[in-house]
Amino acid sequence: MKVFSGIKRLLFGRRLANAQMGETLLPKRIALPVFASDALSSVAYAPDEILITLSLAGMAGFMFSWEIGLAVGVVVAVVVMSYRQTVHAYPSGGGDYEVAKVNLGRYAGLTVASSLLVDYMLTVAVSVSAGVINAKAMLPFLEGHEAWTAVAVIVFLTIVNLRGVRESGGAFAIPTYVFMGSMLAMIGIGLFRIFVLGQELMSETADLIVVREDGAEDVMGWALVAILARAFSSGCAALTGVEAISNGVPAFKPPKSRNASRVLAMLGLLAITMLLGIIALANLTKVHLIDELTGTHYIDALGNTIHSAATTVTGQLARVVFMDWFQPGFYIVVTATMLILFLAANTAFNGFPSLASILAKDGYLPRQLHTRGDRLAYSNGIVALSLAAIALVLIFNASVTALIQLYVVGVFISFTLGQIGMVKHWTRELKVESEPEKRKKMRRSRMINIVGATLTGIVLVIVLISKFTHGAYLAVVAMGVFFLLMLAISNHYRAVEEEVALTPDSDRALPSRVRGVVLVQQVNLPTVKAIAFARATRPTTLTAVTVAIDDDAVEEILDQWEAEDFGIPLKVIASPYREITGPFIKYVAKLRTENPRDVVSVYIPEFVVGHWWEQLLHNQTALLIRTRLHFMQGVMVTSVPYQLASSDARKQRARKASAPRPPR
Amino acid sequence: MKVFSGIKRLLFGRRLANAQMGETLLPKRIALPVFASDALSSVAYAPDEILITLSLAGMAGFMFSWEIGLAVGVVVAVVVMSYRQTVHAYPSGGGDYEVAKVNLGRYAGLTVASSLLVDYMLTVAVSVSAGVINAKAMLPFLEGHEAWTAVAVIVFLTIVNLRGVRESGGAFAIPTYVFMGSMLAMIGIGLFRIFVLGQELMSETADLIVVREDGAEDVMGWALVAILARAFSSGCAALTGVEAISNGVPAFKPPKSRNASRVLAMLGLLAITMLLGIIALANLTKVHLIDELTGTHYIDALGNTIHSAATTVTGQLARVVFMDWFQPGFYIVVTATMLILFLAANTAFNGFPSLASILAKDGYLPRQLHTRGDRLAYSNGIVALSLAAIALVLIFNASVTALIQLYVVGVFISFTLGQIGMVKHWTRELKVESEPEKRKKMRRSRMINIVGATLTGIVLVIVLISKFTHGAYLAVVAMGVFFLLMLAISNHYRAVEEEVALTPDSDRALPSRVRGVVLVQQVNLPTVKAIAFARATRPTTLTAVTVAIDDDAVEEILDQWEAEDFGIPLKVIASPYREITGPFIKYVAKLRTENPRDVVSVYIPEFVVGHWWEQLLHNQTALLIRTRLHFMQGVMVTSVPYQLASSDARKQRARKASAPRPPR
Repeated sequence: MKVFSGIKRLLFGRRLANAQMGETLLPKRIALPVFASDALSSVAYAPDEILITLSLAGMAGFMFSWEIGLAVGVVVAVVVMSYRQTVHAYPSGGGDYEVAKVNLGRYAGLTVASSLLVDYMLTVAVSVSAGVINAKAMLPFLEGHEAWTAVAVIVFLTIVNLRGVRESGGAFAIPTYVFMGSMLAMIGIGLFRIFVLGQELMSETADLIVVREDGAEDVMGWALVAILARAFSSGCAALTGVEAISNGVPAFKPPKSRNASRVLAMLGLLAITMLLGIIALANLTKVHLIDELTGTHYIDALGNTIHSAATTVTGQLARVVFMDWFQPGFYIVVTATMLILFLAANTAFNGFPSLASILAKDGYLPRQLHTRGDRLAYSNGIVALSLAAIALVLIFNASVTALIQLYVVGVFISFTLGQIGMVKHWTRELKVESEPEKRKKMRRSRMINIVGATLTGIVLVIVLISKFTHGAYLAVVAMGVFFLLMLAISNHYRAVEEEVALTPDSDRALPSRVRGVVLVQQVNLPTVKAIAFARATRPTTLTAVTVAIDDDAVEEILDQWEAEDFGIPLKVIASPYREITGPFIKYVAKLRTENPRDVVSVYIPEFVVGHWWEQLLHNQTALLIRTRLHFMQGVMVTSVPYQLASSDARKQRARKASAPRPPR
Repeated sequence: MKVFSGIKRLLFGRRLANAQMGETLLPKRIALPVFASDALSSVAYAPDEILITLSLAGMAGFMFSWEIGLAVGVVVAVVVMSYRQTVHAYPSGGGDYEVAKVNLGRYAGLTVASSLLVDYMLTVAVSVSAGVINAKAMLPFLEGHEAWTAVAVIVFLTIVNLRGVRESGGAFAIPTYVFMGSMLAMIGIGLFRIFVLGQELMSETADLIVVREDGAEDVMGWALVAILARAFSSGCAALTGVEAISNGVPAFKPPKSRNASRVLAMLGLLAITMLLGIIALANLTKVHLIDELTGTHYIDALGNTIHSAATTVTGQLARVVFMDWFQPGFYIVVTATMLILFLAANTAFNGFPSLASILAKDGYLPRQLHTRGDRLAYSNGIVALSLAAIALVLIFNASVTALIQLYVVGVFISFTLGQIGMVKHWTRELKVESEPEKRKKMRRSRMINIVGATLTGIVLVIVLISKFTHGAYLAVVAMGVFFLLMLAISNHYRAVEEEVALTPDSDRALPSRVRGVVLVQQVNLPTVKAIAFARATRPTTLTAVTVAIDDDAVEEILDQWEAEDFGIPLKVIASPYREITGPFIKYVAKLRTENPRDVVSVYIPEFVVGHWWEQLLHNQTALLIRTRLHFMQGVMVTSVPYQLASSDARKQRARKASAPRPPR
């Protein structure tokens, strides 16, 4: 442990408390990689998904990759511009959830929250799956073991996060900058070799002809439109992660909003450049992908049919650009791509509990999730996310193409509601603002958000229509379940809050006296301790009570009682059915009835043991009695713990389990 | 519910408390059926198992059924005589477990207990499976669905026992007497028709020739000896249940021991008569059985091979004896056989928790099982037994032949150890007895027990050798697991008891003062109640403590606190990591350190909710804090329950769950 925490400290710096948060505020050069890993990593698989979907139309489909790429680029640009407005208006980091909740009400907020929760699960599944497919370009033996490799990666991330890792600018900056640098270099060198040096670069799949599942003709007309719509929808996966910055504004160095806004702009520029660059290069080097799921396949120059898909676009481009003159370049690109995808998954592991904490604060999830310091609650969130992601990976066999059908819906639901909320926000602000200069700026912002809302709304409709039957319905169902669950929790909390609220008429009367009752099952040290503690509280009356299960045992207890001379009476209750709980409860109930204005204080000696299985051997009766007494008005139950020697080990574990974890 | 309890009362009489137990003492005519169902029911499948095992030797095997039957009869006679001694010497009902524990020590007692626990599970599985096979003689459509029919019967028995059914002489007497009467009548009429009327009665399998699995020759020599040994071992299943009377002595009318001893003698006589009668009739009517498991099969007169087994011996005999002149006779025999087998299984459902209760009293099982009145503990025992029996039935596909391989080992382990214990008992008694008349009687008893111990010991060795590899090893492994588990539990209880024992040097000092601490998370009715109760106990100091998770919330709490004017100070603890448990625990620990001679009393307001899932939404922090505080010396934790309106329903359920159940 010492060694591990030493390494951790070396890697991530010392733990920081709330008060020290100021120190960690991020300069732009660190903020960019921290928040960009999620958004940029999606550029690594978006082109693949566009080409794969286009392959459904046969060779004719690939001609449209340019148009699809441009369309996605436009959406990215508009969304980035829209979010720049959000960042200025809501610098608190609540993101779309806050925007929707504040401007559109509870249900809109819940809808955004549901889609974000589902999206976090899908982010892990999609990013890790995409990372594994990229790794295959380098490590071909992974072929056929994709799902289990992805599961192993998720388990690794889970363990790392359970042990407690801090997101650190440094740890994120290096692979992210390497990814950006090597990607841009690959695109630049590729274009340079083709256009300036005039070399003919051909990808490994350039000579392969793509044929539709049944060998049918290339599609045209409405069927083609449908395929183009789906390709566009899948390409919109490139937008996932853009919203991350709007959640991260508080972490920026001041001026926070302005810096965040600038990083957003940089991110948008980078994403569009990389997306279009990759698509351009893929077009020039004639990258052809197939969709293994629907059965499109290759026919090679000799007329052989090939059913297994080639590696990713990135892998093919890196190979054709670097392999013949600078092999390390290939490995750098592929490794960096893989790493940034795993980093993106890791982001979800931090974002999920964070969102859960906000939702818990608003009463939509169990309240204890809000006190994120408790390692226990945090761990539950991580494990839940991990299990959901593993299930998704196994069900969809780590196929990015299959998973992506579920993915984009949630993102665009939250985009659209967020933007609509922003429009409402500006309209409301405009009502109270009179300064012409500011009004002008607000009008401009509102216009941007109107365009953003309209465009993302249109994309949402396209995504829903083109993907619903291909899997998006599953995401919608999952969101519905989360929505209803959180609504039920919220309604419950509201009802309880109302029930327990203090009103002027609330009963504040003090009970007049305390009747102490000690439950005695044996005369031993725990009992002596309970009696001593009970006497220390000086109740009005104090009675020891034992339930007669067994004549011999009662005899023994009475003898010991007399010998010890505790100075309080021992009452023996008959138990015709050889049970303890019932007669004891009845005794307490009688005491209550006879003294309605008094409070009864029941003292129960309890063993504190070292292992959970020892727990099964002790305190079961105490537990049952405590539970039953809880339902009785005017009774309080005091456990007087007696620590057995074996409890020391467990004490350590309990302390560790609820130890604080540093804030993000 | 009212209707159900009305019917129950009608069937089983009103509930009886301990004090009323005297009323239920059984006269011999009722005691016989109550205790005989288990022992006599085994006569229903023992002949089958003898014949099935003999079929392994081909047609030659059946010639030995007489000898095997006689050998089993001798064992029954000796065991019954031996138990008559036990009944006189140990009238308390502890049976072999008590005899072994008292005379041979802890480990012998535990060995007997382990074998009895395993035997109860097997009793249910074997009896129900045999009952279902018998039912097949009448309901041929059960063919192929034996396992699931058996499971359904077990589930039915489980439900009946969970709802709480009282074993009643009347309910047992009728089917048992019908079984005895119809069996004896069948044997008598059969022999009468053959010997007096000179009719040639031939069973349905008389003309079928049994061939060994590979069609090989009938076995002879050592191989035949091995098969005869196994047939004898399986036949010894007839002895299961004989020990039941030694556990039931307290239920007899006085003179208890003498009456029990007489019933034992009757039982032995009946068992031997029925066993030999069935084997004789089976021989005369040429009943041929095959072992489906090892592949022995029939060849009929036309030379066709038949692989599926015929019905039971009882079924075949009842058919040949009654079918041609009095069809109801057939149905009565088969129905009574089926019923008595199910009754035998039901006996285990009562015996298992009963034994568990005795073991719990001796500290070998969790203590709470002793207080049998608690429905919860009793239910756990029934469900555990039921699940084990269902697993056995499903694993062995309800095959009595397969299950019986596991069965007899445990019975004879407990027989042998019980008898050895009795020998030791008499030897010890003889040391202190001087009256010649009594010494003579004791010597005689000891001789009987020596013979019993020797014979059952020899049978145990035969059973172990002939069955070990056929499945008995599984039973031995299961017994070993129970043995080690109970030993571990016992060692744990002993260590704890030693640790908490009161000694003259034990610290009995009273803490000097009480420091009260109320945990405040919100200012609402539960908090007000907790404060009121805490003030009623008049601690030396009383402080309300809240942990600052969230600045706004603290602000609100402070405002409300001031407005309410509770008259006690509210302390706000900083929580840098946004967690409640750690800072609160630290505060209490500090209070302890500063006042080492005082006791700290922590008051925690708790919500009492209506559903288990509501529990997930409340009290989690309270639970965590309580657990952590339990490990702290000198701290007592008081929960002040606040009953929400929704808790009413749950209160009813809790009351029902721990309601007493009548004694056996």
